[in-house]
Amino acid sequence: MSVRVFVTGGTFDKEYDELTGKLYFRNTHVDEMLRRGRCALDVDVQTLMMIDSLEMTDEQRSFIVQACRECEEDQIVITHGTDTMVETARAIAEEIESKTVVLTGAMVPYAFGSSDGLFNLGSALSFVQSLPRGVYIAMNGRSFAWDDVRKNRDAGVFEKLET
Amino acid sequence: MSVRVFVTGGTFDKEYDELTGKLYFRNTHVDEMLRRGRCALDVDVQTLMMIDSLEMTDEQRSFIVQACRECEEDQIVITHGTDTMVETARAIAEEIESKTVVLTGAMVPYAFGSSDGLFNLGSALSFVQSLPRGVYIAMNGRSFAWDDVRKNRDAGVFEKLET
Amino acid sequence: MSVRVFVTGGTFDKEYDELTGKLYFRNTHVDEMLRRGRCALDVDVQTLMMIDSLEMTDEQRSFIVQACRECEEDQIVITHGTDTMVETARAIAEEIESKTVVLTGAMVPYAFGSSDGLFNLGSALSFVQSLPRGVYIAMNGRSFAWDDVRKNRDAGVFEKLET
Amino acid sequence: MSVRVFVTGGTFDKEYDELTGKLYFRNTHVDEMLRRGRCALDVDVQTLMMIDSLEMTDEQRSFIVQACRECEEDQIVITHGTDTMVETARAIAEEIESKTVVLTGAMVPYAFGSSDGLFNLGSALSFVQSLPRGVYIAMNGRSFAWDDVRKNRDAGVFEKLET
Repeated sequence: MSVRVFVTGGTFDKEYDELTGKLYFRNTHVDEMLRRGRCALDVDVQTLMMIDSLEMTDEQRSFIVQACRECEEDQIVITHGTDTMVETARAIAEEIESKTVVLTGAMVPYAFGSSDGLFNLGSALSFVQSLPRGVYIAMNGRSFAWDDVRKNRDAGVFEKLET
Repeated sequence: MSVRVFVTGGTFDKEYDELTGKLYFRNTHVDEMLRRGRCALDVDVQTLMMIDSLEMTDEQRSFIVQACRECEEDQIVITHGTDTMVETARAIAEEIESKTVVLTGAMVPYAFGSSDGLFNLGSALSFVQSLPRGVYIAMNGRSFAWDDVRKNRDAGVFEKLET
Repeated sequence: MSVRVFVTGGTFDKEYDELTGKLYFRNTHVDEMLRRGRCALDVDVQTLMMIDSLEMTDEQRSFIVQACRECEEDQIVITHGTDTMVETARAIAEEIESKTVVLTGAMVPYAFGSSDGLFNLGSALSFVQSLPRGVYIAMNGRSFAWDDVRKNRDAGVFEKLET
Repeated sequence: MSVRVFVTGGTFDKEYDELTGKLYFRNTHVDEMLRRGRCALDVDVQTLMMIDSLEMTDEQRSFIVQACRECEEDQIVITHGTDTMVETARAIAEEIESKTVVLTGAMVPYAFGSSDGLFNLGSALSFVQSLPRGVYIAMNGRSFAWDDVRKNRDAGVFEKLET
């Protein structure tokens, strides 16, 4: 039993360009993070895109859904920018019923030392192995069903919808 | 629904004493790690002891079991040295049937930058919320039932028992 | 014999705002860096401004010159953005003849783990104690006289003027 | 004009062995540290030995003196354990008169994140370029003449001898 990790970019993978002083994407840090976590799971990491989730198009979102459908694994973790993570979760949930899909991300880039990324990756990989089929977001040490979650932008945390 | 975290020491919490050049224990890093993980779970952290697990006595092990029994929470994470983590898991399993208990630790101290501790803590907190009642070890991105796990000391990883 | 450190901002002190995803200034990291370097010099740190050096006005540059003139110390280190560091060095050199002034900065923010800032601060504090009166830039492990240095923006290093 | 760096080990280069839980030496971190400091000096790094300075023999100390004498460079930085750094400085000073030699080290291993090593390396490389011929210790942001310095073991800092 193996887990597929799809990388789509997001704060998780941003780096600092010392020549321009801007943040940018180069390669994903997920492989390095799995080594650091001494992860012994059978994990297959694949980069689908490397973008800020605010700039994700409908086509790119459809491409992610398609990748989830077509991969062999039933357990999928997706690293994703936090700003539109809920939107992508919904797009996947509308199409995929037979797999466990967990989206996660980070508030601070992994490369910046104080990142929550390693904690979140450990969390997402654990939830994807233990939660029933469905689409979830794993952030802040919690799991959220795709249809009962929003990002609270003022506090920088994910939370359940108010009832 | 809240999670209890019991701290017992282990590599997880070791620090470097710059005056003696030795590793030692001061305070736990779990609270700092929860902040870094932007953990929004209702977590109650309690330090039971601060020891190398090779030096854990039967009395100390019984004290951990008692703490698991007496605390209000049904979901318990225990940070523990890796060398006798399996032994403590067994002691708990023999006494506690109605709770989910997940033991975790680290191969490298959290204070040393390259630690797996943050990954493991994210993993343990996620498994404890999603696994059925029982006693488990969460290491290397995986969960192990207490009676089907050993530490492979040569490789520095946890693995299932050979069948 | 004590050293004055004037903080003006620059990449050195930038931080990542996890709510906006932008870089910004909060407080200087110089005090924390001096503690980490176990610095036992008599150092007096004073923040003059907290700005990106590309946005430094003539008035602000004059304010720095005035601060150098009026402080009691004869040995002054200035942390400064790299983009206009040479320009500020020139402004100081035109007015201050009786002190040793060393400007330094960083290509990567100190808060980002992989920063050159700690190396540069150690370098600047050492040069300021050992170089004769004059105005210098300390970057890349070297010291440069204020009138024989430029930032090579393509390479991200400081170098002597071509002869 | 180039600088020779001789590596002899010390806390500077210690690492954590996650299988044994002990500190040990593997390779030096000096090259990585020079890259992180964006050092553009012409530096030639050579490992002479990789030992705890408490275990340094007279033969090893003589070997360091010989290396200082025979190398082409007139500016030499030596990374060294702090416990017997003063003793090695004396051995060099008794034999070498025509070069600038600066010994430095660290209270915390570079690999452990909170190390003073990068600060000290920046400091030593700057002092070696700017101090007159002689043998010095660069620690705590200061330079000490070899015959007016001791390590205060209780405070973990270097200081001048009492007069």
